[in-house]
Amino acid sequence: MTRARASASGRRPVLSKASASLTHEVEVLDERGRVSRIAIPAERPLTVYVDKRELVTLMTLGGAPEALTLGYLRNQRLVRSVGEVVSVQVDWAVDAVAVATRNGIADVEQRTAKKVVTTGCGQGSVFGGLMDEVDQIALPPEARLAQATVYKVVEKIRTQQSIYKQAGSVHGCALFTGAGELLYFIEDVGRHNAVDAIAGLMWLDGVDGADKVFYTTGRLTSEMVIKGAQMGIPFLLSRSGTTQMGHMVAERVGMALLARCTGRHFLMLTGHGRLAFEPQAEDAAP
Amino acid sequence: MTRARASASGRRPVLSKASASLTHEVEVLDERGRVSRIAIPAERPLTVYVDKRELVTLMTLGGAPEALTLGYLRNQRLVRSVGEVVSVQVDWAVDAVAVATRNGIADVEQRTAKKVVTTGCGQGSVFGGLMDEVDQIALPPEARLAQATVYKVVEKIRTQQSIYKQAGSVHGCALFTGAGELLYFIEDVGRHNAVDAIAGLMWLDGVDGADKVFYTTGRLTSEMVIKGAQMGIPFLLSRSGTTQMGHMVAERVGMALLARCTGRHFLMLTGHGRLAFEPQAEDAAP
Repeated sequence: MTRARASASGRRPVLSKASASLTHEVEVLDERGRVSRIAIPAERPLTVYVDKRELVTLMTLGGAPEALTLGYLRNQRLVRSVGEVVSVQVDWAVDAVAVATRNGIADVEQRTAKKVVTTGCGQGSVFGGLMDEVDQIALPPEARLAQATVYKVVEKIRTQQSIYKQAGSVHGCALFTGAGELLYFIEDVGRHNAVDAIAGLMWLDGVDGADKVFYTTGRLTSEMVIKGAQMGIPFLLSRSGTTQMGHMVAERVGMALLARCTGRHFLMLTGHGRLAFEPQAEDAAP
Repeated sequence: MTRARASASGRRPVLSKASASLTHEVEVLDERGRVSRIAIPAERPLTVYVDKRELVTLMTLGGAPEALTLGYLRNQRLVRSVGEVVSVQVDWAVDAVAVATRNGIADVEQRTAKKVVTTGCGQGSVFGGLMDEVDQIALPPEARLAQATVYKVVEKIRTQQSIYKQAGSVHGCALFTGAGELLYFIEDVGRHNAVDAIAGLMWLDGVDGADKVFYTTGRLTSEMVIKGAQMGIPFLLSRSGTTQMGHMVAERVGMALLARCTGRHFLMLTGHGRLAFEPQAEDAAP
């Protein structure tokens, strides 16, 4: 009843607040046989059940399982609006998440049948039809990014507390306002889980992508660019590089891709007109 | 006829020799608005048809599509022996590969139904049951690795010609003999394609993993460790780190995991007894 009302009234789905340890200590030997202990990131399965039907098992760090589940359903286009979701209940005791929807997923069999195994870290499987949708995506043509914002984003990430700094071997994704204020920072064993979790948080909070900046530590492969476009975000920044298909998709949707973002350096790959170059930003940056 | 005989007699499947450009030049702007051109790695879809039935679409660099296809079918446990494969014909004109088998894939529907979306870069989707098979894997208990071999492997990788050095944004995987001689080096947009391509080459050449060393530039996530174990390789080396599940699986199968392998440094995570520490190797290394 409560859940039904919550959903019917368009409020947030009822979410569990599952928590799990995100790092694990192990004993290692170095090249001289010296024993020490280091932290490594957790990696655990999360099997997604939608209306009691098993859909998929995600391998995840486990830091934001409810948002990950919602964002996965969003980015896979299996659920079209957050209002369709009544509840998302994670239970680490059984490594599962139960999603209840108001009306179920239409022709889920057919829509999950076609597998595309992508370059995604952490989330490789994109069900069919994503590329078809790319051509229907229109990013705001007038959206511009100030050069100083690029530096602000990079600096914020550099100083961010993270599992990566503790244990390595995770990717981080973040959403910023156009002014460079951090909204969300998510890490996962794969950058595709991290981007999906951010998509889930945007849904929950009703955050629109049109004036936002997305940052990832990972590569801008086709799937990352497609997901960024689906989220309506005109600016994708990465510490890393891109691939030919990531580049192609970004050009097709008019997205600005900035790669190799470190310190005061970056390489603008696409959407050149979207960056407001500011010679003085070289010095003005934080 | 030819193909049937080739297969019936246990010889190699008939393979196409498809080639495609592996890098692509794009124009970029740097932080001062200066224009230059850089190379980025290719990324293209390869749709796998087995006996005329569409199975999956892999996103790949495209450097070794025949070996990738074979290794994918091997590592997904969809084909149990290379002798079952009559031919592997890649046609980049349609981004597809046609695999002909002697007897088809038994209950392919059921075996490809369960999706596990893993931390794999480049190949995330592992069909069900892989973990069940882990407990049936027995790696040779007596296999040992000399410390000098670790350094030899790392040095060989450091000096290897690569797409990574030209264009970045790819992962490399390599197979070495126990003496540190390079057998295969494969790069792809995702390390899971690279490891699968090596599994395919091992099948084609009848190479056994029991006395081999596997190296990857990528992280040792659960799926990488499971695939290494399936290939029967007792030693996995990485420039990068590992995850809790990668660590757990390696301990379960008795595999030696060496992470952070750079120069003369490494961290031995599991299988401590498998490394023959050589104090003098610090100096003896190439």
